[in-house]
Amino acid sequence: MALPEPLLQLVTLLKRLPGVGEKSARRMAFFIIQQPGSYPEELAIALHGLKERLCECSKCGNITDVDPCSICTDPLRERQTLCVVETAEDLLSMEQAGIYNGLYHVLKGKISPLDGEDLPPSEYERLKERIINTRVKEVIIATNPRVEGDLTFYSLFSELEDLDVKISRLAYGLPVGGSIEFADRITLHAAFESRVDVRKNKRR
Amino acid sequence: MALPEPLLQLVTLLKRLPGVGEKSARRMAFFIIQQPGSYPEELAIALHGLKERLCECSKCGNITDVDPCSICTDPLRERQTLCVVETAEDLLSMEQAGIYNGLYHVLKGKISPLDGEDLPPSEYERLKERIINTRVKEVIIATNPRVEGDLTFYSLFSELEDLDVKISRLAYGLPVGGSIEFADRITLHAAFESRVDVRKNKRR
Repeated sequence: MALPEPLLQLVTLLKRLPGVGEKSARRMAFFIIQQPGSYPEELAIALHGLKERLCECSKCGNITDVDPCSICTDPLRERQTLCVVETAEDLLSMEQAGIYNGLYHVLKGKISPLDGEDLPPSEYERLKERIINTRVKEVIIATNPRVEGDLTFYSLFSELEDLDVKISRLAYGLPVGGSIEFADRITLHAAFESRVDVRKNKRR
Repeated sequence: MALPEPLLQLVTLLKRLPGVGEKSARRMAFFIIQQPGSYPEELAIALHGLKERLCECSKCGNITDVDPCSICTDPLRERQTLCVVETAEDLLSMEQAGIYNGLYHVLKGKISPLDGEDLPPSEYERLKERIINTRVKEVIIATNPRVEGDLTFYSLFSELEDLDVKISRLAYGLPVGGSIEFADRITLHAAFESRVDVRKNKRR
């Protein structure tokens, strides 16, 4: 027996979501039809016209419903630091951590030779122009700690090197709360390479 | 920074799905808006009026878009065996395994004292009537191997005991492909209790 057609359609679509396989999709579909009240309708309404109700912030590239986004227009934000991230999701993770108060710049793409992806030349221009026009003092390149992120970092760095601006990268090392026992070889290597002189740090 | 309102609404709804937390819901929402084409619309359409397009099969209680369902009307199904399951999801799992060719009976509820759930008296009547009217030869009570399932099994069994019909229950034991090392105490106990006389089985 196959699933009834309306359920099958839903399962097929749910399966495309990240981290959702056949079994989870079925579980979700059954959950949806068994919810009391109008849950499926609410979900349908939330999805309907979703893309039209959102846009990219023309300043930073963040996903937003008002342009410029709430970060770019926030008067309490420190405007001399620019954090360059790969995606709007990375931006959101940082915001939720609440550890950064400067501005962001979301890249439209990343360098990933294996996926045949590259950063379009216009992206370098867009970033450079923004740095020059807004008199930013520091650019923090916060690409992901992987090969693609590193490639993107080096490519951006060589492009921005000549600008009169401090350029930094997030530190690699042991994740806090993790354990050395379970750290992989490359992370351990990075932690050794970037080891901190305790005495010097204390003196500061 | 909070999520833009349309995204926040979607995340709030997605979080209610089983197995989906805050992080997964956000990941799904970002995935949805970044999909090329009309994926969000397709999903909205699949959800719209979903409950109205589905119903319970009036014979077996399965979820279906045509009543009676495709299992009840399938002429190739063996009609003397009735498998009683707790939910339509359990039914679907059995169908996907493709190991059973009889008819089903989906219970509307289960006995779960901790959740304050009980099997309504009409359910016993519905099952009894069906067994008597359709001249079923065997009833397989396939409740889940947990306390609630066992309670439901015993309650159904005591109700059906007097009927002229064979009543069976799915076997408890070691899951095939699993290992004794990781089997829990109760499963091991069940496997010992239901151990099979090899010589007797061979002679048969």
